Amino acid sequence: MKIAFIGLGHMGNPMARNLLKHGHALKVFDVMPGLVKTLTNLGCDHATSAAKCAEDVDVVITMLPSSPHVRSVYLNATGILSAATPDTLLIDCSTIDPHTARDVAFDARAKSFSMIDAPVSGGTGGAEAGTLTFMVGGDSQDFEKAKPILACMGKNIVHCGGAGNGQVAKICNNMMLAIEMIATAEGMSLAAKLGMDPKVFAGIANTSSGRCWSSDTYNPYPGVIDNAPASRGYTGGFGSDLMLKDLTLVTEAAKAAKHPVMLGAAAQQLYQMHSGNGHGALDFSSIIKLYKKD
Amino acid sequence: MKIAFIGLGHMGNPMARNLLKHGHALKVFDVMPGLVKTLTNLGCDHATSAAKCAEDVDVVITMLPSSPHVRSVYLNATGILSAATPDTLLIDCSTIDPHTARDVAFDARAKSFSMIDAPVSGGTGGAEAGTLTFMVGGDSQDFEKAKPILACMGKNIVHCGGAGNGQVAKICNNMMLAIEMIATAEGMSLAAKLGMDPKVFAGIANTSSGRCWSSDTYNPYPGVIDNAPASRGYTGGFGSDLMLKDLTLVTEAAKAAKHPVMLGAAAQQLYQMHSGNGHGALDFSSIIKLYKKD
Amino acid sequence: MKIAFIGLGHMGNPMARNLLKHGHALKVFDVMPGLVKTLTNLGCDHATSAAKCAEDVDVVITMLPSSPHVRSVYLNATGILSAATPDTLLIDCSTIDPHTARDVAFDARAKSFSMIDAPVSGGTGGAEAGTLTFMVGGDSQDFEKAKPILACMGKNIVHCGGAGNGQVAKICNNMMLAIEMIATAEGMSLAAKLGMDPKVFAGIANTSSGRCWSSDTYNPYPGVIDNAPASRGYTGGFGSDLMLKDLTLVTEAAKAAKHPVMLGAAAQQLYQMHSGNGHGALDFSSIIKLYKKD
Amino acid sequence: MKIAFIGLGHMGNPMARNLLKHGHALKVFDVMPGLVKTLTNLGCDHATSAAKCAEDVDVVITMLPSSPHVRSVYLNATGILSAATPDTLLIDCSTIDPHTARDVAFDARAKSFSMIDAPVSGGTGGAEAGTLTFMVGGDSQDFEKAKPILACMGKNIVHCGGAGNGQVAKICNNMMLAIEMIATAEGMSLAAKLGMDPKVFAGIANTSSGRCWSSDTYNPYPGVIDNAPASRGYTGGFGSDLMLKDLTLVTEAAKAAKHPVMLGAAAQQLYQMHSGNGHGALDFSSIIKLYKKD
Repeated sequence: MKIAFIGLGHMGNPMARNLLKHGHALKVFDVMPGLVKTLTNLGCDHATSAAKCAEDVDVVITMLPSSPHVRSVYLNATGILSAATPDTLLIDCSTIDPHTARDVAFDARAKSFSMIDAPVSGGTGGAEAGTLTFMVGGDSQDFEKAKPILACMGKNIVHCGGAGNGQVAKICNNMMLAIEMIATAEGMSLAAKLGMDPKVFAGIANTSSGRCWSSDTYNPYPGVIDNAPASRGYTGGFGSDLMLKDLTLVTEAAKAAKHPVMLGAAAQQLYQMHSGNGHGALDFSSIIKLYKKD
Repeated sequence: MKIAFIGLGHMGNPMARNLLKHGHALKVFDVMPGLVKTLTNLGCDHATSAAKCAEDVDVVITMLPSSPHVRSVYLNATGILSAATPDTLLIDCSTIDPHTARDVAFDARAKSFSMIDAPVSGGTGGAEAGTLTFMVGGDSQDFEKAKPILACMGKNIVHCGGAGNGQVAKICNNMMLAIEMIATAEGMSLAAKLGMDPKVFAGIANTSSGRCWSSDTYNPYPGVIDNAPASRGYTGGFGSDLMLKDLTLVTEAAKAAKHPVMLGAAAQQLYQMHSGNGHGALDFSSIIKLYKKD
Repeated sequence: MKIAFIGLGHMGNPMARNLLKHGHALKVFDVMPGLVKTLTNLGCDHATSAAKCAEDVDVVITMLPSSPHVRSVYLNATGILSAATPDTLLIDCSTIDPHTARDVAFDARAKSFSMIDAPVSGGTGGAEAGTLTFMVGGDSQDFEKAKPILACMGKNIVHCGGAGNGQVAKICNNMMLAIEMIATAEGMSLAAKLGMDPKVFAGIANTSSGRCWSSDTYNPYPGVIDNAPASRGYTGGFGSDLMLKDLTLVTEAAKAAKHPVMLGAAAQQLYQMHSGNGHGALDFSSIIKLYKKD
Repeated sequence: MKIAFIGLGHMGNPMARNLLKHGHALKVFDVMPGLVKTLTNLGCDHATSAAKCAEDVDVVITMLPSSPHVRSVYLNATGILSAATPDTLLIDCSTIDPHTARDVAFDARAKSFSMIDAPVSGGTGGAEAGTLTFMVGGDSQDFEKAKPILACMGKNIVHCGGAGNGQVAKICNNMMLAIEMIATAEGMSLAAKLGMDPKVFAGIANTSSGRCWSSDTYNPYPGVIDNAPASRGYTGGFGSDLMLKDLTLVTEAAKAAKHPVMLGAAAQQLYQMHSGNGHGALDFSSIIKLYKKD
């Protein structure tokens, strides 16, 4: 199939390369010409604007940094919706707020496009390995059409319901993740401060009711899990500033819905403080630095 | 062996009966005479005070409601340490603060008793079934001596390190549990408010980085897990007021150690508010009522 | 002077009437025709759109409910900036986020308008009585031009610095106010719960380091201050949902600036919970209901 | 009158000297002999224990660091209640939890002593100058007896109700103070970050609904108030660790009363974090360092 890929950053680049490997023909665009080059070197076409990129293709995939980017790239006078052929399948893989996702999908449908929101989890590692999880919002029919394409880039493709629900699933999961990571950071650091061996405590929590992904797979205490970021100075992994971005999205979605999220809002603040302390580029498990002084 | 069992409430009663089943000879005491009767009916001896109960036995087991109770039952002029034969093995199964546990163990050792702290998890269900988890603090030697006794009442017997570490493990695990339960309550209720099917969202979180025991085993959203308290009106299970008690213990231990636990303290407050709203007797997963109006 | 007044809700209506009383000629507009009528009955002109209202006047005053309204009423293709005569003085009295205020002021200046942001405090009472406080952001020159106009509607007219600073002053002050109100609610309710007479405690705090406007002028405990909303069932005053709106503005401005506001975010959440409990229409001092059960 | 003074630290020492200045005869005791010397040099008697100090005097004043100290100094087998002559007036100026204050007062009354709790505010500056505020709990009759004595050391002597109410007033006021200080720190630092002049913003808040003692008298932003600790590197004043102690007392009293104090608990945690960052000895207004990076 002929696929347009728009947005070639750390995630978009390896995702596009996995589509190539599966034999798809790619046309690419990014506002940074340098990012385009890696892919034209591999034989991809390229376009001089998002709109031109979206012309005459079967599928458009976008991977953009924020809600306003998605809104303008799709809805502007010279945006994708004005340029793509009707019936093109539109797949937005950006992580953005559910309301924007629904607005854009609504306008897309009004112009008889198929559109899904399909934010990912799995990080750059998953993007390289083609093992991402896609959380998909949209009609069942569009979901089925998108599935074989997404399967070139990911392993789990989950239908979350109608338009915007991919975003809801992503940000609500990540809010839980952030709170549970801080819960683990507080529990581990306090147990150590009160005299327990951190590995022994992790072993107990992980076979008990306190267990969570952050404690049994990605423990923030150095030395507890060999291949976790905590055991290599919090390098690699999922950056604290990216977690902060998702927490900002989810707390604003909660405000718009007039729904309280006491611990979600506290987590957003703690990551804000952590980022302000200069640790935004470290893996998000480094939040334990608020509790455990080195 | 001849075992004294002191404290025969909801947990102590079934624990004592499991010891009987394994052929041990029991002498029992409780300040409430009614609680003693069930066990004397089964052939147990009884004593008229904790001290008398602790005389001439091989092992003393206590299951008491709070730190001051433990302190006075062991350390008073007419307490266990003044009455038991030296070398008696002392096992305190109460959930109390680590400092009190260490104080009492210190005095016990000074009088050449063996002593461990062995708080439990698993609830009354686990106590009945003999499947409790014991988190044990104390010397390796004392741990080994206690193991066969504890094995009559539980399934997992974990050595957590020196005196008081059983308490540390228990309260730090439960702090993580409480925060993760609230994380799950906030994530589930927000996803539903934003338009997702709660079961679908739980399925996604549970195979992703947001998963935790509270989401995959004990989900607080009604109807998501059939045999969880949420699906039977939050009856049974682990009461909110008991969780509040553990959160109070852990936040006070953190204060004494001058260790911040931002979300732990917030969780303590939210359970306080929930209890003040009249829900203290409901299972602790009912905390979702702060977020999701019926 | 000839003044256009756009936005005639609870605040705008009495503000416009005070301008009339001072002899100004008014042209008015609101999307709700009913709101216009009160003023045309008093002899005001009216227009059929915001743009038409802004034509051929010396001053335009807007009083609108939110940032998107301000953005569209000023910047749309058929907005105020496209219709007003250059050199018209533009005064936006809405409470909105500082970034939007600065964007609009920037565009206004580019088209050689004078523009200030001038959010108010003092409520409908102050609007009726002409005793509002105006917090003004903009050039000194524009501030001086606006001053005599604002003086028809208010008593304190404070210059806060450049464009947007009126909004900064308003929302930062209101964040402090909300936190201090909750501080007072917690302190008063706890002192009462611990056995003190609330009036005696208020008397002590108010002559000590705990004093604040919320304790000495607007105390949330019923019966402590005779003419405070707390003493008449929390009717009248400044609604909880209006405070929630300001807290949402300030926490989002803080996020955009990557600045932590731990208690500000907690206050936003507590008002969200209070509103969800059905108390959004009560005066904001009713937040004490989270603490003190009737 | 013959007065025993027990506890001669930073506060007790100048308080005792002010009693001397008013012509009272003093007998003093402290566990640190060095602290006694300053006073014996001025002609005071001294005793070798608290109990001996309390013998044969008209009034006993204690100024001790914590609840356990007060409990043991008064109630131990060789404590004040066992040594003082019946009818001696007992005045405890320590800041402790209200429950301990009530326990001790209860035992004192049972032995027919008059007793009041009279914690102070005003710091070492107020102690030197004799301008302390005393918040007094106890019978009216005992309050009247104590008043002329307290007037030698302070300026405001406020009757707060029955036994323990002095402590309630002190810790509830200080909880409000701590929250309001953090409110001011968040508001000031955010206004500055968003581009306002801190002095201008303080001026507005201080004449508006956001005003509080922390903003108009003790502003935490450097340079806003000339003689505040913020303008001299946060030296002098009321130390962060002392505020942390009071917040710990008040949050524990709230837990014991099952009363939620969401922001009080958050404030306790923020001061814990601040202290852990190494700033415990700085004035409590230095909490702004959590928000404003130098």
